Amino acid sequence: MAMPSRADCESLDARDPLGRLIGEFAAGEPGWLYFDANSIGAMPRAAQGALGRIADEWRRLRRRGWKDSDWLDAPVRLGNKLAPIIGAEPGSVVVCDSTSVNIYKAVRMALALRPGRKTVVAEAGAFPTDLYVAEAAAPVLKRVDSLTGGGQTLGSVPSDTAAVLVTHTDYRSAYRHDLAALCRAAHERGALVVCDASHSAGAVEVGLAASGADFGVGCGYKYLCGGPGAPAWLYVAPRHQSAAPVIPGWMGHADPMAMSPDYKPAPGAKRHLAGTPPVAGNALMEAALDLWRDIDPQAAFAKHAALGDLLIRLVEQQCPDLSPASPHDPARRGGFVSFRHRDASAFADALEAAKVVASYRAPDVVRFGLSPLYHRYADIWALGERLRQLETVRMQ
Amino acid sequence: MAMPSRADCESLDARDPLGRLIGEFAAGEPGWLYFDANSIGAMPRAAQGALGRIADEWRRLRRRGWKDSDWLDAPVRLGNKLAPIIGAEPGSVVVCDSTSVNIYKAVRMALALRPGRKTVVAEAGAFPTDLYVAEAAAPVLKRVDSLTGGGQTLGSVPSDTAAVLVTHTDYRSAYRHDLAALCRAAHERGALVVCDASHSAGAVEVGLAASGADFGVGCGYKYLCGGPGAPAWLYVAPRHQSAAPVIPGWMGHADPMAMSPDYKPAPGAKRHLAGTPPVAGNALMEAALDLWRDIDPQAAFAKHAALGDLLIRLVEQQCPDLSPASPHDPARRGGFVSFRHRDASAFADALEAAKVVASYRAPDVVRFGLSPLYHRYADIWALGERLRQLETVRMQ
Repeated sequence: MAMPSRADCESLDARDPLGRLIGEFAAGEPGWLYFDANSIGAMPRAAQGALGRIADEWRRLRRRGWKDSDWLDAPVRLGNKLAPIIGAEPGSVVVCDSTSVNIYKAVRMALALRPGRKTVVAEAGAFPTDLYVAEAAAPVLKRVDSLTGGGQTLGSVPSDTAAVLVTHTDYRSAYRHDLAALCRAAHERGALVVCDASHSAGAVEVGLAASGADFGVGCGYKYLCGGPGAPAWLYVAPRHQSAAPVIPGWMGHADPMAMSPDYKPAPGAKRHLAGTPPVAGNALMEAALDLWRDIDPQAAFAKHAALGDLLIRLVEQQCPDLSPASPHDPARRGGFVSFRHRDASAFADALEAAKVVASYRAPDVVRFGLSPLYHRYADIWALGERLRQLETVRMQ
Repeated sequence: MAMPSRADCESLDARDPLGRLIGEFAAGEPGWLYFDANSIGAMPRAAQGALGRIADEWRRLRRRGWKDSDWLDAPVRLGNKLAPIIGAEPGSVVVCDSTSVNIYKAVRMALALRPGRKTVVAEAGAFPTDLYVAEAAAPVLKRVDSLTGGGQTLGSVPSDTAAVLVTHTDYRSAYRHDLAALCRAAHERGALVVCDASHSAGAVEVGLAASGADFGVGCGYKYLCGGPGAPAWLYVAPRHQSAAPVIPGWMGHADPMAMSPDYKPAPGAKRHLAGTPPVAGNALMEAALDLWRDIDPQAAFAKHAALGDLLIRLVEQQCPDLSPASPHDPARRGGFVSFRHRDASAFADALEAAKVVASYRAPDVVRFGLSPLYHRYADIWALGERLRQLETVRMQ
């Protein structure tokens, strides 16, 4: 297969139905190539306006903002805007808290729904916070080498497994689990599935409803572009929405302002809200979610897959020191593409010096996070060029 | 005692050492008197700059903001700025999560520190979320009529009481508990104290360290002026800081970026952090906390007490339909002053029509939240005038 040229990439950009979105983002630092979409997504231009609106409303309305503005129902409203992006049913997602807190809530809910079962199963290489939280939340955390080892999904797990906690996309290799297969296997064993889709949501298909996942969590600041430390999200499958909330706060009460001493949960996923919504954080998150208003998520996922495929081809054809650590099959790849390098830490430093923002994960991978919203095919080509030049320098 | 005149109040303002702070706040809506400091505090002018800085840093730095800006250590840095305002030791406060989530963490920590004890005691009239969360977090929630009934602090509580959860300032009457007496009584019974100081912090003395409280929580958006839905705070007494965190996330890890599969808690209160800090919310909160830089908290508390005393005097002398529901003794009064009215709901509507922002709490009180930072004595006088006029209208 011929090497894609710059002109080929520009031609792809010219035909890209999502190309208009690039103008919706504020330009980053001149001269830099930003490929850390898996860490902090770029800033939508609308974020400025959102912040200005919040400052104006806070100044003018103060307390009346709860009534005269749209602050109060933001967790549910934003959840409904996010739902199609992660393949969730309307009304089944709330935007709230941090990913860590939502993992805790989901794991504890799963345990409560499977009384008598005490074990949560996760991969030993799951995202560390998934493990930390599960270990604290569950009576027993069983770490397994792989949820898909030996060609078999899930394999043998303890019979008292209440939940399988899966890091949907591995944070080093970008390997993306087959969530539907995992849910089938877990459900056959009477266990529920909690999916941490932080490294998937907004970049690739998560398909929570179609896969049969029981709970989902993820962060808002990576591919979703909600800003640094954006509120996270929690998905609760409709069949579990009547479960008792783990942290029942006033925002999950059926009538918060009645100030009843007794807790009466709101209907739907809303009951899993606890504290007062973070108004500024939600405003930024909403500006980002609104970018998806007229986008078919499948078109975004297809573009993301094509960007990743292109990067892998460029690297394989011209960077012999880098070998793909991520699956070639885009259906098994999450939000970024990573490559192994025998001296990855030094290579990451060289990238930084060459004004490429990527990320290093010990011991041997560098990651390039790709956004279907603000990356161009020509950006991938430019990245390929810088990678090639770095290799050339090393060979001299 | 003679009725204070407008000139008296203006004279007090002229001599007020905190008077310069009023210029640090953005003006509210012209013609309105804002007395809902207990709901959403006014906006510091510096909030605009804080939002602008965050937008600029997000746009320029993206992921590098974690390293090249001050986003990452905000929870601890802000905690240290808040500590003197709530009488906490340096290093014992983190700004994070919501009040509800922090109550959950504190109650579960208290239970873990008192193994074998299963009961949490709270007043039946505690702030509702305190009760909701405690009921979910504790094996047994014992609701008592009063923690200070019959002249006795705490009285008899079950011998397996792990923790007393106290709403420091009652959200209807503004009655403020004697936290030191309560801690002594609880500790004598082997129980710990969790104090929800949401309606105290930033207005009146909380004195967490001096009172011997074990855990404290509170919100950032009331008297602390951190903006709607601001991050909350968590106080962990130094003697408990080695307790295992309830929700151990990566931000509480000794070395988050090492991505170790095993949890190793950071030293001090920092280990009680879980998820990624909300950068925009923290920036607003910091702008508000920085207003206290050159303030002696005791001077702020003294002014707050004087404002409340003044309001009670003005009302008692000229508003026969209103009777104080709050203690006359400012040492027993929290952040607001409330009054009983035989038709309080309608009276609250009349206040709104008269462009006074106050709040109604069923069945019979209206509350006026007072800030030592942005309220003038002359504002209290103006409020007294409007209240008097409303009463006059009713009598015609």
